[in-house]
Amino acid sequence: MTQIFDNPAHFADEALDGFVAANREYVARVDGGVVRSTEVPSGRVALVVGGGSGHYPAFAGLVGPGLATASACGNMFASPAAGQVYRVAKAANAGGGVLLSYGNYAGDVLHFGQAQLRLNAEGIETRTVLVTDDIASAPLDQIEKRRGIAGDLTVFKIAGAAAEAGLSLDEVERLAIRTNLHTRSLGVAFDGCTLPGAAEPLFHVPAGQMSLGLGIHGEPGISEHPMPTASELAELLVSRLLEDRPEAAGNRVVPIVNGLGTVKYDELFLLFGKIEKVLVSAGLEVVEPECGELVTSLDMSGLSLTLLWLDEELERYWAAPADTPAFKKGTLAPRARRAQAGPEEVVAADAEEPAAASAHLGRLAAAVLAQVRDVVVEHEEELGRLDAIAGDGDHGIGMRRGVDAAAAAAEAMAAAGSSVARVLTAAGEAWSERAGGTSGALWGSAVIAAGLALGNRASYRGEDAADAVTAFTAAITELGKAGPGDKTMVDALLPFRDAFLRNLDGGTQVAKSLAAAAVAAQEAAEKTSELRPLKGRARPLAEKSLGHPDPGAISFGLIAQRISTYIDSELAAAAGKGARA
Amino acid sequence: MTQIFDNPAHFADEALDGFVAANREYVARVDGGVVRSTEVPSGRVALVVGGGSGHYPAFAGLVGPGLATASACGNMFASPAAGQVYRVAKAANAGGGVLLSYGNYAGDVLHFGQAQLRLNAEGIETRTVLVTDDIASAPLDQIEKRRGIAGDLTVFKIAGAAAEAGLSLDEVERLAIRTNLHTRSLGVAFDGCTLPGAAEPLFHVPAGQMSLGLGIHGEPGISEHPMPTASELAELLVSRLLEDRPEAAGNRVVPIVNGLGTVKYDELFLLFGKIEKVLVSAGLEVVEPECGELVTSLDMSGLSLTLLWLDEELERYWAAPADTPAFKKGTLAPRARRAQAGPEEVVAADAEEPAAASAHLGRLAAAVLAQVRDVVVEHEEELGRLDAIAGDGDHGIGMRRGVDAAAAAAEAMAAAGSSVARVLTAAGEAWSERAGGTSGALWGSAVIAAGLALGNRASYRGEDAADAVTAFTAAITELGKAGPGDKTMVDALLPFRDAFLRNLDGGTQVAKSLAAAAVAAQEAAEKTSELRPLKGRARPLAEKSLGHPDPGAISFGLIAQRISTYIDSELAAAAGKGARA
Repeated sequence: MTQIFDNPAHFADEALDGFVAANREYVARVDGGVVRSTEVPSGRVALVVGGGSGHYPAFAGLVGPGLATASACGNMFASPAAGQVYRVAKAANAGGGVLLSYGNYAGDVLHFGQAQLRLNAEGIETRTVLVTDDIASAPLDQIEKRRGIAGDLTVFKIAGAAAEAGLSLDEVERLAIRTNLHTRSLGVAFDGCTLPGAAEPLFHVPAGQMSLGLGIHGEPGISEHPMPTASELAELLVSRLLEDRPEAAGNRVVPIVNGLGTVKYDELFLLFGKIEKVLVSAGLEVVEPECGELVTSLDMSGLSLTLLWLDEELERYWAAPADTPAFKKGTLAPRARRAQAGPEEVVAADAEEPAAASAHLGRLAAAVLAQVRDVVVEHEEELGRLDAIAGDGDHGIGMRRGVDAAAAAAEAMAAAGSSVARVLTAAGEAWSERAGGTSGALWGSAVIAAGLALGNRASYRGEDAADAVTAFTAAITELGKAGPGDKTMVDALLPFRDAFLRNLDGGTQVAKSLAAAAVAAQEAAEKTSELRPLKGRARPLAEKSLGHPDPGAISFGLIAQRISTYIDSELAAAAGKGARA
Repeated sequence: MTQIFDNPAHFADEALDGFVAANREYVARVDGGVVRSTEVPSGRVALVVGGGSGHYPAFAGLVGPGLATASACGNMFASPAAGQVYRVAKAANAGGGVLLSYGNYAGDVLHFGQAQLRLNAEGIETRTVLVTDDIASAPLDQIEKRRGIAGDLTVFKIAGAAAEAGLSLDEVERLAIRTNLHTRSLGVAFDGCTLPGAAEPLFHVPAGQMSLGLGIHGEPGISEHPMPTASELAELLVSRLLEDRPEAAGNRVVPIVNGLGTVKYDELFLLFGKIEKVLVSAGLEVVEPECGELVTSLDMSGLSLTLLWLDEELERYWAAPADTPAFKKGTLAPRARRAQAGPEEVVAADAEEPAAASAHLGRLAAAVLAQVRDVVVEHEEELGRLDAIAGDGDHGIGMRRGVDAAAAAAEAMAAAGSSVARVLTAAGEAWSERAGGTSGALWGSAVIAAGLALGNRASYRGEDAADAVTAFTAAITELGKAGPGDKTMVDALLPFRDAFLRNLDGGTQVAKSLAAAAVAAQEAAEKTSELRPLKGRARPLAEKSLGHPDPGAISFGLIAQRISTYIDSELAAAAGKGARA
């Protein structure tokens, strides 16, 4: 079990501090993760990896020349927040663009995706390559739904070597995608891991049994089998992976035997010896293998086999040298220490003086967010009860945490006279980081997108409001990947956007268009009670959810209604003032 | 628990095979362990490390440029046999002499010691530096009795760097000794490890408790304490180690936080961060630390802290580059692959043609060993029963296994017309390897020593027999470190030697001197029943042993008696033939 700590709540942070203290020649701490402490030549692509903590050496242990440039490090088994990813990527950026790469998990996709939107909006060209190597998590024709497990290593290694060689962002991205398509993994678990402070593992596998198709966050496998001999296990893993052989595969292959935590070295080597024999007798050539602890899951008892199918180009970058705290290969010339390894000022001040109109709109945005906070607080318990019917009951408290932080950040920025862009960027980032989870990432990202759409202009018109609503909506649908009928907040959001744009197009004023849109959102939210969830929090308990509306749609409807009411009363007050003047 | 295997009996061997398969660019398999697969410049000192398996990366994972030249690898937690050490050292030898270095455990001391005698006898200058870093295992004024735990790494690293730099055997030995004197470790255990095939760990620590002063072979600690916080643990480990600070210590120190197997990386890093703070606030400067799994004990739950106290010279070699499967530091130029990485023919044929007299004596030696086998078989059960009174009851079967192998090896060599030196060398090596344990190492070593004393000469006289008996006796007393009155086979051996030499000196024939010596041995063996054991197998049950003779002394007396009888009858037969002729 995991038991070395002072306070389990600070485990991930203190472990990362200790990691940096033990590896100062490789890494420096930045807010949200670590970045190389050695020089990165100007113009190189920055490879930013990351994910939850508890997987060492993934991800921070893989930062160094020839591999990752930086790692965003979340809490135990939890995605880093979008703001963390953003700040780490800013610190890693060397002017050649940023490649984000990480395992395919919903939380990571949301937060890294939000960071990518923001980096691109700031002119730092950023791409994403997801790792989807786990053949147990979806069939081959749905490879994009597969999880990332130890295949992280092959994708990071080859992308890192390509970046080290000075290749362009296009080329590094292309190689990372190809590596992922040439990588297959399958794992087995013998027992679960224990989170810091917990008394029991996340799951147990019965004695004498083995669970096939493990995850790396305490997910048990997909089927149970009697414990095999090492030779049988080698046969099983290789034969399943060969059935899933990529189309373009040659016959040179890199096997990676990865221990999850408590299956120890002698056992891994013994199994490697058997696996090599099975591969050779299948007519394959084994090239530069790895055997050890590369992507772990705390003290989980399990292991995985990864096969990387080489072609000439992938082999060149796989074989290239790398020098990181936990993964060293070949010989690289020593690097000079970076003059300033610390983080840059990443929440940048407005580049230009805030325009008066934009600062005015920023104050209005902060006042609107205070209203949003009030309506969430008023309905916090109700939203929690609704979410508990088919979810985990945390929608109320999650929204509350996020909007509290967002309203406070917006107020501070507005008081300083910042542009609306800066007010909403700060608010969205705070929302995302404090709320955590999926809805926090979506709301945070959408608020930032609206802010960037409004920008820092000398005057604003009705079209600007249309742009902001469109950007807000697009951020949520792009990141969340939910469509109409999936029983998520999107079912209230799309009718809201459509009604708003339709009214505005038809010549209606902003305030009146908003009122119509809010009505549409609330009606649509109520109607989600007829839907069966296909996506999001309620999917696993679909039947229980029928007859109840989606809490995310409901909270969106409530917020839309409150904003409309507030804007209306503000306009009325302004008109009254105007009449009295 | 340890569960990946086909047959637990082959676990260590198959794990080592798999390790070599995964690391061919570093190591090649030789009979008894692994040796570098890369070139070692001629004239360099060979650093040969080793010990039982189950401690990866110790010991095979530490073989490579800048660190060890080779590793002798025993069974799980069991010393390699002397013959294994000998063969591995022969394969590692590059003409600059051999430094053997390993943790201070009785079995390793015996087997490595026996190999050292043999290497020196063959003209390969060989020295030994024991690692004794564990402060929990004996007080500072008995530092030579302390066990070796994770301090193995500092001694191997600095000796390996010194050898890499081309220093002489004297200098490499001097630096290894100084490093050991500057290294202190202390460990804690939270739970025991499970040997392959076993259903239960070797020990348990009660939940919520911690055992201070762990060993690395399943030895529980020396005292139990409530589980501390990480900060308290850091304070405890550092303060105990500072109390044991070496006299010559400066204020620059290398801390090494070592995980034993299932205390995972994030926990180790978290603890490292706390330890660094405690060291700094004690006014110390932290230099090039290590934090990870460096000397493990299968899946044991525990960790240790090692402090290496630097001076200018030790710091230079600690900081030097190294490149091994599991320990990489800095940058070394790539090495060419060795032309022939496989083992040399290490059980060398006689360098010169066997002399007729020596081959004749070889045949006699083989016949004597067949007699020794017979007498051991006849008394196997009786010796077992005697050993079970205060020991583990395996003396009969151990002797039987050893002498069976020795007699067979001698017969094969004698049939090929080999010299007596080669016959007895092969026999002693087979004895040591097949019998295992302490008495196997002692008997094997003594038989080899007798063989080397007899050599390959054109004629033999009485003095040669005296030399052989003296060498046989010296091998046992030097390796076993037992003296008269300790209740071991030495209590029968010394009277045997003394009576033999006294009679021979007085002009008595060899056969008659042998008869007198055998009587002295048997009388002395019986008298050991009056002794209380101070050394060896019976010590822990000293009271039960009183009134019963020592089984090792008894078996020696029986063997001496049988040899004397046989030689007598052979001489009589030869005389009869002579009379008939």
